[in-house]
Amino acid sequence: MDPASTIGHQEFDRQRDPQHHRTLGSDAGDDRDSRNASPEQGLNRRTFVARGLSFVGLAAVQGLAPAWAAGKPRIPDDPTRVPGSPPSAYGQRSTFEDASRLVSPSHSLTPLQALHGIITPSALHFERHHNGVPLIDPARHRLVIHGLVERPTLFTLDELMRFPSVSRTAFIECSGNSGGEWREPKGKTAQETHGLTSTSEWTGVSLATLLREAGAKPEAAWMLAEGSDAAAMTRSIPLASVLDEALVCYAQNGEALRPEQGYPLRLLLPGWEGNTCIKWLRRLKLGTTPFMTREETSRYTDLMPDGTARRFTFVMEAKSVITSPSGGQQITPGFVEIRGLAWSGRGRVTRVEVSTDGGRTWKLAGLQEPILPKCHTRFRFPWRWDGQETILQSRCIDEMGYRQPAREALITVRGVNSYYHYNAIQSWKLLPSGEVRNVQV
Amino acid sequence: MDPASTIGHQEFDRQRDPQHHRTLGSDAGDDRDSRNASPEQGLNRRTFVARGLSFVGLAAVQGLAPAWAAGKPRIPDDPTRVPGSPPSAYGQRSTFEDASRLVSPSHSLTPLQALHGIITPSALHFERHHNGVPLIDPARHRLVIHGLVERPTLFTLDELMRFPSVSRTAFIECSGNSGGEWREPKGKTAQETHGLTSTSEWTGVSLATLLREAGAKPEAAWMLAEGSDAAAMTRSIPLASVLDEALVCYAQNGEALRPEQGYPLRLLLPGWEGNTCIKWLRRLKLGTTPFMTREETSRYTDLMPDGTARRFTFVMEAKSVITSPSGGQQITPGFVEIRGLAWSGRGRVTRVEVSTDGGRTWKLAGLQEPILPKCHTRFRFPWRWDGQETILQSRCIDEMGYRQPAREALITVRGVNSYYHYNAIQSWKLLPSGEVRNVQV
Repeated sequence: MDPASTIGHQEFDRQRDPQHHRTLGSDAGDDRDSRNASPEQGLNRRTFVARGLSFVGLAAVQGLAPAWAAGKPRIPDDPTRVPGSPPSAYGQRSTFEDASRLVSPSHSLTPLQALHGIITPSALHFERHHNGVPLIDPARHRLVIHGLVERPTLFTLDELMRFPSVSRTAFIECSGNSGGEWREPKGKTAQETHGLTSTSEWTGVSLATLLREAGAKPEAAWMLAEGSDAAAMTRSIPLASVLDEALVCYAQNGEALRPEQGYPLRLLLPGWEGNTCIKWLRRLKLGTTPFMTREETSRYTDLMPDGTARRFTFVMEAKSVITSPSGGQQITPGFVEIRGLAWSGRGRVTRVEVSTDGGRTWKLAGLQEPILPKCHTRFRFPWRWDGQETILQSRCIDEMGYRQPAREALITVRGVNSYYHYNAIQSWKLLPSGEVRNVQV
Repeated sequence: MDPASTIGHQEFDRQRDPQHHRTLGSDAGDDRDSRNASPEQGLNRRTFVARGLSFVGLAAVQGLAPAWAAGKPRIPDDPTRVPGSPPSAYGQRSTFEDASRLVSPSHSLTPLQALHGIITPSALHFERHHNGVPLIDPARHRLVIHGLVERPTLFTLDELMRFPSVSRTAFIECSGNSGGEWREPKGKTAQETHGLTSTSEWTGVSLATLLREAGAKPEAAWMLAEGSDAAAMTRSIPLASVLDEALVCYAQNGEALRPEQGYPLRLLLPGWEGNTCIKWLRRLKLGTTPFMTREETSRYTDLMPDGTARRFTFVMEAKSVITSPSGGQQITPGFVEIRGLAWSGRGRVTRVEVSTDGGRTWKLAGLQEPILPKCHTRFRFPWRWDGQETILQSRCIDEMGYRQPAREALITVRGVNSYYHYNAIQSWKLLPSGEVRNVQV
């Protein structure tokens, strides 16, 4: 793997601002152990930097404000002179890091603009609960499979973990992601506009394995999936559409599912709207028709311009968002790597195109390998901002040939009565001040 | 992607124990909302299970001990009747989960036997420190590149994050992983024998980009990399061998590096021994020869049978370990999915072979896609344990054609004076009691 292959170094060389960091003199210094000297020795900046001495001294020279002033722990002036902390049983992030989910009573949003790569840290995976996060003892939890099966069966967690297991890195997106954008540019940041999508490596048992174990009857066409939360969240799932890929998961990013992601069991239907990936899963019932639970109509339908409603619109269509630069960020002229995420519930992302002129022209972005089906894909595009006002956009094309629509095209078909399944191109306006704002064009 | 493809359902059907979980009667029950009934209504077990009612009642029937007895929080009898917790800004794992790193003063070990898939949760990534984890303010941290360069240069973290970025999912393995196994079967668990390897998705800047920025001179052949810890940990790196893949990383599994993994900057040399992936990176100096720092000789050389020492043995050769069943676990007869991890510092894993008879015969294990170069690869093998004593083993073959050696073959070449780079086949003995023990054959 050539780590530079997705970027294009020539392009980078052409676009970059050669002066955006400090170049020192060419005095290469000597090899003495850094700890044999200190800022107090009064070396001039050039010599002391070239010798690799304390950068803290340099910060002081430059008048940088000490970061611990705002309640941070006391930072040693020279970390090489103070023994560090011992290993720990279960690590925490640095106290300097504060990327957080944006929390409301029913959900929380992933801070996409603060993240890198495609894996969402489990602690920052978005949440959407219908009556909070239940407290469940895994030793007492059971999954029942019943209805049109030969052998209605109860499974303990230990039993499920003995079955053949499967891992799959996949996004989960709430169908309400970007729902605030139908009528106006509501979200101020990428977190607010697109933060209801996250990616994890999930591990569990194939649903097909469990249904064979219970002896699903040939006439079983729909499956009711029910959670153990205080909403007893339920959805009806058409079996034939999911059987190849559905997993009953007990693990996320290597460890047990997080409580807010369904601990100890979650249904994963890769590419389908998040609410169908029932959390705290306790029951699967097979039948011949949809079960028409509350959630089939009270939510999760799409009101069309003619007053009819689309139902069972499960698949999350291709979508993308530029996460940097994005709303609320402040940028400076010069080289800017435009970074973002693209995904499709239909399969792999095949192309992402970026416009730096409000949609007049589009260029191909680089895609970070591996490109996995129904998974966030990181795209990057090297660019030089001249400081003029402009609009940045991205659009995703998936392996079905589907192209993420412009806002106008989406609204022409769907109207503005819907809340769910908004996947139009996102526009970020750069102002000459360097401010980035959510706009709709 | 067919989630069952790596397992072979026919094999599973043949091997599985059909009675290892409870099959209920075929009474499918009705569809009434679960919350309209309760265990107190005195339904018999069959009816009440078939109706999807409280599993807590069932647990009581079966006499399971309440799990909260040991200091756990009070668990509601029926989670559907108690509103759950609200969303949170930064999530925590369930209080029922306790997988932990095994901690010693200088290092901690990843609990491989408790993990799933290939991503290691950042909180459980192994640690190896030479003088603890330094406390570093990222705003004050600098990386200097000097020595044989045209433009000795200081970089702030913000500056580094503006450069073209690259993500890479890769393992890091300490060269001392399994070092206790040279003379005797020392580790009791997979964590103790193999827990000094972990996998993360890393994001940062290509080293090649930074060296071009500083203007590396043609005669520069070696690079000194230095950390900001109290050991000022330093290693000499031959540039030509790493330039295609080396990254200067600031992110791990989506968020900022964890402190114990080098926050805010770490050198990543995919496939190379972990100690070369300098944490808390603050200095890179280019030269023509190795810098012969303390760590080049006091550690990280391999003493051979003839008394000479191998030096600069950077690459971690192909290796694998069965993580389940593994030492310290207790298993029962019937279907057992043998699960493990395989990896190679030379590239992709192409095959993993499993023996269930102490090495007499070997069969191909299934490999979970995606199989990434220099990355943990999850393997699985369906098996039926008849309850008799036997020995389980795995061996990894990589894309160079290298095959992980038997213990005897490794010792024939290397002797038993070494501590580092032990990659022999691991043997786990199953006793008729179901106990699993580390043995050497």
